[in-house]
Formats: sequence, structure tokens, C-alpha cells
Amino acid sequence: MTAAIDFIALDWGTSNVRAYAIDAEGRIVGELASDKGMGKLKPEEFEPTLLELIARWLSAERVLPIYACGMVGARGGWQEATYGQVPFDVHRALKLTKVATSDPRIEVQIVPGLCQSTPADVMRGEETQIFGLLEKYPDFEGTIILPGTHSKWAEIKSAQVTGFKTYMTGEMFNLLSQQSVVRLSVAEEGWDDDAFLKGVKDAMAAPQDFTNMVFGLRAKSLLTGLTPLEARAMLSGLLMGMEIKSGMDSFATGQVAIVGGVKLMGIYQAAFKEFGIDPLCDVDENFTVRGLNLVAKAQKEGVAS
Amino acid sequence: MTAAIDFIALDWGTSNVRAYAIDAEGRIVGELASDKGMGKLKPEEFEPTLLELIARWLSAERVLPIYACGMVGARGGWQEATYGQVPFDVHRALKLTKVATSDPRIEVQIVPGLCQSTPADVMRGEETQIFGLLEKYPDFEGTIILPGTHSKWAEIKSAQVTGFKTYMTGEMFNLLSQQSVVRLSVAEEGWDDDAFLKGVKDAMAAPQDFTNMVFGLRAKSLLTGLTPLEARAMLSGLLMGMEIKSGMDSFATGQVAIVGGVKLMGIYQAAFKEFGIDPLCDVDENFTVRGLNLVAKAQKEGVAS
Repeated sequence: MTAAIDFIALDWGTSNVRAYAIDAEGRIVGELASDKGMGKLKPEEFEPTLLELIARWLSAERVLPIYACGMVGARGGWQEATYGQVPFDVHRALKLTKVATSDPRIEVQIVPGLCQSTPADVMRGEETQIFGLLEKYPDFEGTIILPGTHSKWAEIKSAQVTGFKTYMTGEMFNLLSQQSVVRLSVAEEGWDDDAFLKGVKDAMAAPQDFTNMVFGLRAKSLLTGLTPLEARAMLSGLLMGMEIKSGMDSFATGQVAIVGGVKLMGIYQAAFKEFGIDPLCDVDENFTVRGLNLVAKAQKEGVAS
Repeated sequence: MTAAIDFIALDWGTSNVRAYAIDAEGRIVGELASDKGMGKLKPEEFEPTLLELIARWLSAERVLPIYACGMVGARGGWQEATYGQVPFDVHRALKLTKVATSDPRIEVQIVPGLCQSTPADVMRGEETQIFGLLEKYPDFEGTIILPGTHSKWAEIKSAQVTGFKTYMTGEMFNLLSQQSVVRLSVAEEGWDDDAFLKGVKDAMAAPQDFTNMVFGLRAKSLLTGLTPLEARAMLSGLLMGMEIKSGMDSFATGQVAIVGGVKLMGIYQAAFKEFGIDPLCDVDENFTVRGLNLVAKAQKEGVAS
């Protein structure tokens, strides 16, 4: 099988690492994963971790190119990779960061993250998903939303990332629902559509009241019998309302595309529907691999440096 | 000494309990404290905890009245006490909740908390500080701010609490500075005045950007060398800016009074100064005891039920 592998695409985040064997046509011909995310490793542990994970794909007869993206390139990761500054042309030569490795069978290069000066912001990993999306939809103009722990909104104009914003929506939801006083009123699972939309609308109408409205979930559960299910959905709505209000104020033009898991995407769709926006949703695609394919192709063609 | 004690004032919060022996003139003649807060006790453990704490003040010859306030009266505390609904007249008869105890030397009653329907909110313990403040400044009209884990803003008109709002400022600061991604950029101690005020102004100008601006602290520390000290003060400023913007929008009239520890009060003063507001600050007074004195006096005079 190693003969068919053209390169390895590596998506190495904080919690997990996913490796994809890609053939000369850009197809995924093998997939491996482990929970040895960047957050659990010291710099010297990355190479042995990688070798162990992809051992079956290696051969003594060749040097296998490996293109990596994500927190592997963060400060405190394997090796700090550069940032590309916005406005960033996705067809521009990517300044990959070569990692010093001792095994002669691999050559590892890390994709740059993106940074922005005003307001200060950074991403590592999501830029590759954006490259992938723009490879699939080259004429896309508007805003790409990548929901998650740190939700990203990126503005695309003429195949350039012209600006972006990170929202701590997922991380704040976890902290507040599991560790704040509100945890006493919030269910661990479950959902309520009406409560979610109420939260979205309340936060959009008075974002300055955010920490008051979060505490209000506890008060409502004590005074008016707000159920733990409703409280959970409403908390999510408050955070999403803040994000959407800020994102729409910042990036108002063009189409909206959401890339992510089915569940999260459905939540965003429901919120956007309230504002008459029908976003382009693309669930099935592994845009990270598509983005790394773009990187590999550019390397072969000598476009990238 | 027990002969001189008229009643015991009990400030029983989530983390700590403080007991004050009060004489017939309302003076504190003894003070005891322990870390056996409401959060650490099951309902049946409150009476033995109290008896152990105040053993030296008890006498077989009399029944000692004990007036308690704080989370001791919360659901899951010793016994759930009632809430007074706003608008609440501080001279109105207080509906105390009598606790079933087995020791004949004590009679324990819990002060009601305050609740508000729209927007839903509750307080337990802070109402007693407000009673104390209004006992000292009977003509006060305006807004009383009680900073803390759950910062409270209460509007006072004609000796009535007409409305209030809780902000999770302190709790969010702890969660974000200790457990979110931002912890990597935030010092455990220290302060920077300019960074604090920048945070206050930024949050007031665009509160919908709150979770983006919090993430921005991490980005600034990576990109522009924002120091951990500056990041700490700026995070505090962002949360305070949200609180002040919301509080000033909600309760705009009259004087502003801040009651709390010296350090926190200084922070609020600095923020308010930016907006030309010079709040009344009262540090030294133990307003909880003053408020419980008011309660005891009303009980003796038969004003309260």
C-alpha cells in the first residue's frame, strides 16, 4: 500500500491527531487517528508519536512528504510555525515551516496559521479548512463560519481572507454549563428550540447584559421553573446570539457558509433563519484534507516556497 | 460575657460563616468565623456546625435569638427561606423564616432574600447589606453596587429597592483567567491601570464582541507581546466594562454607592472616573451586621412578623 501514497495529510489539534494517506489523485487511501493531541505532548514527543501512528505507511525506500496543520505548529507545540498576515491571498505561496526530524523516512512541513493585527486574532488549522472550501467553491464571496470551541468567522473577498474573528462560544459554554453557578440549573444533555431562539434574540438585543442574562438562567430556574433542558438551550442561545450579533456587525456582505458537524450546523441554521439568512452548509466534506491537497499540489508545482 | 449578648448576627455564605455577638446597644462584642460555608454542608450539619462555632456564647439559662442571612437560606442550604419581591420597602415587615432546631438555647431565623421577575434575578445576603446601608444613609437615592463573585446593582428609590441586576463578573474572571485558553496569557497576580481602562472602554464600546475580545488577549500576547500583567488587568476591564455599561443603561439616575473591599472598590472607582462619576464609597462599615441590627430591632419592636 505504501507505494500508492503520495503524501500524508496531518490534522494535529490540541486533543487529537488525524493522519490521512493521500494518493496521487488526491484521494484518501488510509486514515489513522489517536488522542495524542498537541496539548498532551512535549516538543520531543511529537516525532515518536507520529512514527508510531503512521508506522504502517512508512518505507525505507523513500522519503514521505507530510503536510501538517493545526496546533502542532503553535508555540509549545512541535515547532512554532509562521503566521500569514491578513489580507491573505489563498493562492499566494505558502511559507511552510520545515520541522527538524531524525527519521530519514519522513519530511514534515507545517502550514502557516493566519494572524490579524486589528483586532488582534490568530488561527491555526482553520486556515486549511478555508483553503479547502475555497478550492471547492473558488468564486465564494462572503463569510465562512467554522463553529467550535473557538468559533471562527472569516471574510472572503476575491479569494483573499480579508479579516476574521474568533469567538470563545464553545469554550464558554463548557465553562459556564459545567463549572459556574449556572451548572446547577443546566442539563448535561438535551435541547429546546424555543429557549435557544429566545437566548439568541435576548443576547442580540442587549449584549451588554450578557453576564446578567447568564445568571438569570439560575434565577429563572429558582423562580419560574425554567427546566434544565431549557436552561441548556438558552445558555447556548445567549452565546450564539453574542457571536452572531458581533459577526454580522463585522462581516455583513456576501454569502454565509458554515462548515462543521451536522449538530452544530443545525443550531446555527436555526439562529440565522430568524434573521432571514439562509447559509450555505457543507457537512460532508473533509475540508482540512482538501486544503492540504492544495498545499501538496502547490509544493509539487513549485508555486509554494 | 454571655449576659451582655442581646442577639447573634450570622452571615453564612457559600464559603464561610461569620458570627457576631451583638449587645443591647447594637455593638459587636464578639466575633467568630469558620470556613464551614453553606456549600460544604448538608442540611442536617448546619445546627451542629453552628453550636460548635458559638458554644462559648451559649447559656443554659436563656434562649439566644440568632438572625442569619446569606446562602444558609438557599435551596440546598439549612432551610430555604422566602424571597421578598421587588419593589421592596426596606421598612416593610420582614418575613423571617424560622428554622427547626433541637437545641433549646437557640432560636434561629433567616432573613428573606430578594427576587425580581423581569428580568429574573435573586439575591441572598446582599439584601442585608443594602438594609444596613440604608440604615446609615436613610435618604440615599440611586444605585448601590455590591461587587464580588456575583456583583449586584440595586436601584433605590424612596427607601425601596425598585430593581436589581446580578453580574457574574468575579466568577467569570476566575473561570476565564484560570481555566480558559486565556489562562496561558494571564498573570496570577499584578495589575496595570492603562490596560484595565482600555478593557473597560473596549467592552463598553462593543459589548457584542465580548468573547472575541477575551480571545484577543491570547492573540495579543502571541502577536504583540501583551504582558501577563496587562492581560490580567485587561480581562478584568472587559468584564467590568460589560457590567458598568449594562448597569448604567439600566439604573441611570441618582447617586452611585459602592460597598465592598478596598481593592475591588478602587477598581470600580477608576472605571467610573472615566465616565465622570464619583461614587460614594464606604469601605469600613460592616453593613451586614448593621442590617441584622435593623432586623433585630424591628423584631423587638414587633414591627416585623
